[in-house]
Amino acid sequence: MYHALIMAGGSGTRLWPLSRKVSPKQALALLEERSMFRVTAERLDPLIPLDQVWVVTNADMAAIFQAQVPGIPARNYVIEPNARDSGPAAALGLAHIAAADPTATVAILSADHHITEVDEFHRVLDLARDQAQHGHVVTLGIKPSFASTGFGYIERGAVLQGEIFDAVGFTEKPQEDIAEQYFNGGMHSWNSGMFIMTVATGLGEFDLQHPEFAKALRALMGHIGKPSYERELQSVWAMSPKLSIDYAIMERAEKLAVIPVDIGWSDIGSWAALMDALPKDQHENAISGDHVSIDTVDTLVRGGKRMIATIGVARLVIVDTPDALLICSLDRVQDVKRVVDELKHRKRTDLV
Amino acid sequence: MYHALIMAGGSGTRLWPLSRKVSPKQALALLEERSMFRVTAERLDPLIPLDQVWVVTNADMAAIFQAQVPGIPARNYVIEPNARDSGPAAALGLAHIAAADPTATVAILSADHHITEVDEFHRVLDLARDQAQHGHVVTLGIKPSFASTGFGYIERGAVLQGEIFDAVGFTEKPQEDIAEQYFNGGMHSWNSGMFIMTVATGLGEFDLQHPEFAKALRALMGHIGKPSYERELQSVWAMSPKLSIDYAIMERAEKLAVIPVDIGWSDIGSWAALMDALPKDQHENAISGDHVSIDTVDTLVRGGKRMIATIGVARLVIVDTPDALLICSLDRVQDVKRVVDELKHRKRTDLV
Repeated sequence: MYHALIMAGGSGTRLWPLSRKVSPKQALALLEERSMFRVTAERLDPLIPLDQVWVVTNADMAAIFQAQVPGIPARNYVIEPNARDSGPAAALGLAHIAAADPTATVAILSADHHITEVDEFHRVLDLARDQAQHGHVVTLGIKPSFASTGFGYIERGAVLQGEIFDAVGFTEKPQEDIAEQYFNGGMHSWNSGMFIMTVATGLGEFDLQHPEFAKALRALMGHIGKPSYERELQSVWAMSPKLSIDYAIMERAEKLAVIPVDIGWSDIGSWAALMDALPKDQHENAISGDHVSIDTVDTLVRGGKRMIATIGVARLVIVDTPDALLICSLDRVQDVKRVVDELKHRKRTDLV
Repeated sequence: MYHALIMAGGSGTRLWPLSRKVSPKQALALLEERSMFRVTAERLDPLIPLDQVWVVTNADMAAIFQAQVPGIPARNYVIEPNARDSGPAAALGLAHIAAADPTATVAILSADHHITEVDEFHRVLDLARDQAQHGHVVTLGIKPSFASTGFGYIERGAVLQGEIFDAVGFTEKPQEDIAEQYFNGGMHSWNSGMFIMTVATGLGEFDLQHPEFAKALRALMGHIGKPSYERELQSVWAMSPKLSIDYAIMERAEKLAVIPVDIGWSDIGSWAALMDALPKDQHENAISGDHVSIDTVDTLVRGGKRMIATIGVARLVIVDTPDALLICSLDRVQDVKRVVDELKHRKRTDLV
């Protein structure tokens, strides 16, 4: 069967002050009334029904997500003892799915992506499953819309079949000149972080690339649902490589394929990215909440309960919450995480 | 004796959202820990002690001011039945002072001025009293520091005595080219709205320029402190000319003098004016409240209880209150009152 594994353990500091440790961005209704997590899960229907949706996250966030999407069975929540980056999280999720369905194919997804073309998304997920069942790790590559230095890139090689290409190289976030080459060359896609593989392929890559951890992980599968599980998990986790999924297995995967897709994808990784995805008024503002606007353009206003008045401002991000307020140039949204760092430094854990 | 009459009935919409109908700017501690009203009253000591300070305002604000400055006797509060501009307010105040001290000299003052040179202020107030006792209405004129179109101007004529000049003309807020002429000509001072006169002179101008109102007002003086006062006040008030003190008597006063003064005066009439008067940090920011700053310059941050983070912004005014937030270009502070107008239009009386 076709399963999804939603990686939902991140905290999203670049969307502070809305995104917090206790209410991370995936749990927030940033683009519509449903949370990003709920949209991610429900968007898969009917290709992957909710009882085949699995979630890796921490215990606090699991409780939030369960309340938001009651259709996902409780046993499908895979709890990380602590954050070890996305590599171990994916491995643990794959192990749980494999224990439930040893022939499963899994789409590993993030909970902070916006996708406008859902039918096309289903079509390419279906295509990817077929290729995955031939032993490939299949990635969905996004056609770059500009020379971004904020995404990793995947280079396509020879055609494997139809729209599916051999993937010949991963590149982490490149320098500007390299990004320009990639953008103009037409052979590179953005790495969306969406990977499709069978559990056998996925766990097999861990066997090859992280053999000790993989061995412990496979042993852990026998403890799932038993009182011994928690104790065993602790020792497996202590052995896990603290690496992203890209570094942990994808970059050196044996058979890696890419499908360049056009699904209206965006990564809601910053206030600027969110603003791009939001509808705008005639002055290119994206406004929510009570607002009085006098000569305000290209501005994101994310209101809470308070009245917000803006006069003569442009290209600002204004985010209001009960205990913290952000006013940031639209061109400086990557520095929001510096505010979070500073608040941690000041021991203002109540605000992060 | 020398009395002061503080005109404190205005609402200060240009300092929204801090200044509200129920807590107008005079009642706020904008520049230091004491409110503008309290500073205005206490700044007169010892030249004019608090029991010779009188206040014209409405009943709600009188209660606030009494709590802030207990030294002003309750009978020195003169309550306007409703706002009729500053002309009738001054007349009513003068009538109350005249009833208590028929030979009084009165300095009519506003509660929203900042004055840094207090000794010099006392010296010129003293000088003005002497001239007032010769039957003049004496105004303190401020040496223009730029060609402002936001103030009225007073033109000086012949020397009356020492630093005191005959005042030959009032001009309301001028056009830019006229303001330039005044600024370069050196014969014009800004109208500070500070006027010194005996009660006889002041009430005498009302006798001449508004005889029916003045007659009723003089009759009212016999009712002060009696049960009949409130009823009589209502009928006097209904006859009052709804005019500023400038229009009501100053512009056509028989004997008008001006003393050009240099007392470190500023009118805290807008967020930009307040910012000018506040101390700045090394990036020319005036910050109060919890704040994280990343590349923020020339910005006023007036915080409340919330953490405010600013990133990559310049020349902004940010004012945070529990129910309303203002983000305004420093160059557009004159438009803050348009927000108040809009809120009234939306019937958001809770916010104005």
